[in-house]
Amino acid sequence: MQTLWEHRYAQRTQKMKSSAIRELLKLTEQPDIISFAGGLPAPELFPNIKVNEVCSQILNDHPGKALQYSTTEGYQPLREFIANQTSKKGFDVTPDNILITSGSQQALDLLGRIFINEGDHILVECPTYLGALQAFTPYSPDYITVDSDDEGMMTDKLEEALRGGPKFIYTIPTFQNPTGITMSLERRKKLVDLTYRYGVPIIEDDPYGRLRFEGEDLPTLVNLSNQFCGEPGCYSGNTIYLSTFSKTLAPGLRLGWIIAPTQVIGKLVQAKQGADLHTSPFNQMIAYEIGRLGYIDEHVKDICEVYHQRRDIMLEELEKHMPAGIQWTHPQGGLFLWITLPEGNDTVELMKFAIEEKVAFVPGASFFPCGGGENTMRLNFSNASEENLRIGIERLGKVFKQHMVN
Amino acid sequence: MQTLWEHRYAQRTQKMKSSAIRELLKLTEQPDIISFAGGLPAPELFPNIKVNEVCSQILNDHPGKALQYSTTEGYQPLREFIANQTSKKGFDVTPDNILITSGSQQALDLLGRIFINEGDHILVECPTYLGALQAFTPYSPDYITVDSDDEGMMTDKLEEALRGGPKFIYTIPTFQNPTGITMSLERRKKLVDLTYRYGVPIIEDDPYGRLRFEGEDLPTLVNLSNQFCGEPGCYSGNTIYLSTFSKTLAPGLRLGWIIAPTQVIGKLVQAKQGADLHTSPFNQMIAYEIGRLGYIDEHVKDICEVYHQRRDIMLEELEKHMPAGIQWTHPQGGLFLWITLPEGNDTVELMKFAIEEKVAFVPGASFFPCGGGENTMRLNFSNASEENLRIGIERLGKVFKQHMVN
Repeated sequence: MQTLWEHRYAQRTQKMKSSAIRELLKLTEQPDIISFAGGLPAPELFPNIKVNEVCSQILNDHPGKALQYSTTEGYQPLREFIANQTSKKGFDVTPDNILITSGSQQALDLLGRIFINEGDHILVECPTYLGALQAFTPYSPDYITVDSDDEGMMTDKLEEALRGGPKFIYTIPTFQNPTGITMSLERRKKLVDLTYRYGVPIIEDDPYGRLRFEGEDLPTLVNLSNQFCGEPGCYSGNTIYLSTFSKTLAPGLRLGWIIAPTQVIGKLVQAKQGADLHTSPFNQMIAYEIGRLGYIDEHVKDICEVYHQRRDIMLEELEKHMPAGIQWTHPQGGLFLWITLPEGNDTVELMKFAIEEKVAFVPGASFFPCGGGENTMRLNFSNASEENLRIGIERLGKVFKQHMVN
Repeated sequence: MQTLWEHRYAQRTQKMKSSAIRELLKLTEQPDIISFAGGLPAPELFPNIKVNEVCSQILNDHPGKALQYSTTEGYQPLREFIANQTSKKGFDVTPDNILITSGSQQALDLLGRIFINEGDHILVECPTYLGALQAFTPYSPDYITVDSDDEGMMTDKLEEALRGGPKFIYTIPTFQNPTGITMSLERRKKLVDLTYRYGVPIIEDDPYGRLRFEGEDLPTLVNLSNQFCGEPGCYSGNTIYLSTFSKTLAPGLRLGWIIAPTQVIGKLVQAKQGADLHTSPFNQMIAYEIGRLGYIDEHVKDICEVYHQRRDIMLEELEKHMPAGIQWTHPQGGLFLWITLPEGNDTVELMKFAIEEKVAFVPGASFFPCGGGENTMRLNFSNASEENLRIGIERLGKVFKQHMVN
């Protein structure tokens, strides 16, 4: 039906594409499909009893605060809690450096909104997080990409890319989405050093950092950047840091945060006023209470244990069932691993056979903003039971053995 | 402290202004100030016991759904509930015509995002809702304004404005923010007739429509528009309709919705994926359960009774304390009334004296996108006790008697 709204869309609307991941998720919602396509936490581990307890307490004690309009900046005790947690990691920020967002996705959108002019160059590692591309692309940047390998973004190729004059670098250095790869310490240092020399700021997206189940924590880029160009122990402001409660507590609460210089926070607050006024104070109070009582730390311990087992099973089954010529990453944490098939394979095509075999993944090409990656795919291990991991990877092996081109 | 982020802001960031309302709210948060400045529901009426009950039930029965990632379109039972409620009002929509948003503010932002190109003409009544201006302005439209009087937008001036070729009309016809005025039936019909003739679609913002405590309900613009240009009883799609649970349940849940043609919903969904992925399923499930059990209807009855009393007291006190030459509106519902002082007065200046007298309001000029309105102000009556209404208006009378220019 033709309505008066047809032909009235803004130019930027043409750039908005529905996420391949989300469209696939719909396809893979059939209950008999074993899906490694999503990026979902394990729902059976959600601390719903604790959440229920604190909800009840909040609604008994502070209903007028939980259910009322609130400040755009965020619930002050939650901002203080995050500031305190951050300072334990080696540098001090104040609550004024923190904006609570409606999930990490909103953090990406607000940053795109205040920083990206049409045609600005934005430097990203390749492949990179699809949600960031979806947030940035409507603001019409041009992407400069730097390839990555098993140690993350290849910093020996970075200097040339920096000469292209990017407005900022966007990167997920730890347990990256989609690859699961963690950038090595040496490369982190090189990255911070180079960006400092070229005067290019960094957006460090760190949704998965706390989900380490193997190896040693590495310093974040924001930490290295502070050591490099600020007063020791203080926040230098040259790296904006994003994180979220979606992986350490529950994505359904839609809570993320941005750590940024206070001037940037001021601009983000103005942008957020126009975007959604403020994030639910009820949900913020839930996260604060759960965090304050130490339940987030407990929960992180629990999920790391389970995700560790699941990753191990997925790796074990991949060894068993994958035909020769296929490679995969060995993530030390997070939710994902990354598979590379021999050149010439197209994982979008293979997906069709996989769906027939009742198993699903995300074809990798959509994570490459400048093309390529047709022979790659992302697998999620956090959201599948041991049984489904074993059956699903076996099915995938069958699909590849039948349809893979060598 | 200078950081690498300075001088990197996008052009649109210059257009973002912090809301005068929100900045004033901060100023008026001192506990000894009686503030009529906000637009807050009465928190003592929040149905927190019911909310507590349904939270507990949801977290017991469906924690994996409430706390997990969810679909961008919204929680399906809530979309169905809204579709059913809407069809009771005289026209049928399907859940596919409905997008759940993170508050009504996000609805405005998403509509601006998908429809407004730089320089597009957007027709608004004057004064108009500040939050809409904050949502639209970063997308750089030019505003065409049509004055309003006690019957709402002056439709005899509309035809000329329509010749300016606006992309759409944005209006709050019922218990308008900031004036509290309701557009008359005759003007509603004239508006729909004219827009149909000129082929200009309407965005009807209706956050307050259910809060009527006097007089008869008038048909919404979307209803008239359907009668005019669609099949009887069906949704024609030429008017996009917005509403929210913020006034009928609780703003802290951050839940609004958009009714639009399915093609427009498709574009809005893509925009929302980039903006915040989806709205909290937990909060959506709360609203659904509260609505399904009939508690929203009960709650609306309760708040209408209280707001009615509060409006009456405010009107009574205004009669008593306002010096001659001051006029005010007599809203039949909603949260606000509107005061006009004699020309030559500046309510921003008067606000300073008011703060000294420990009473606050919102100066009206910020509701006028094309300037003017310096002698106007908005008062909120929903959020003050009887005692505070009496004392506050008396204080305001004192300020005006001392400082008003005749």
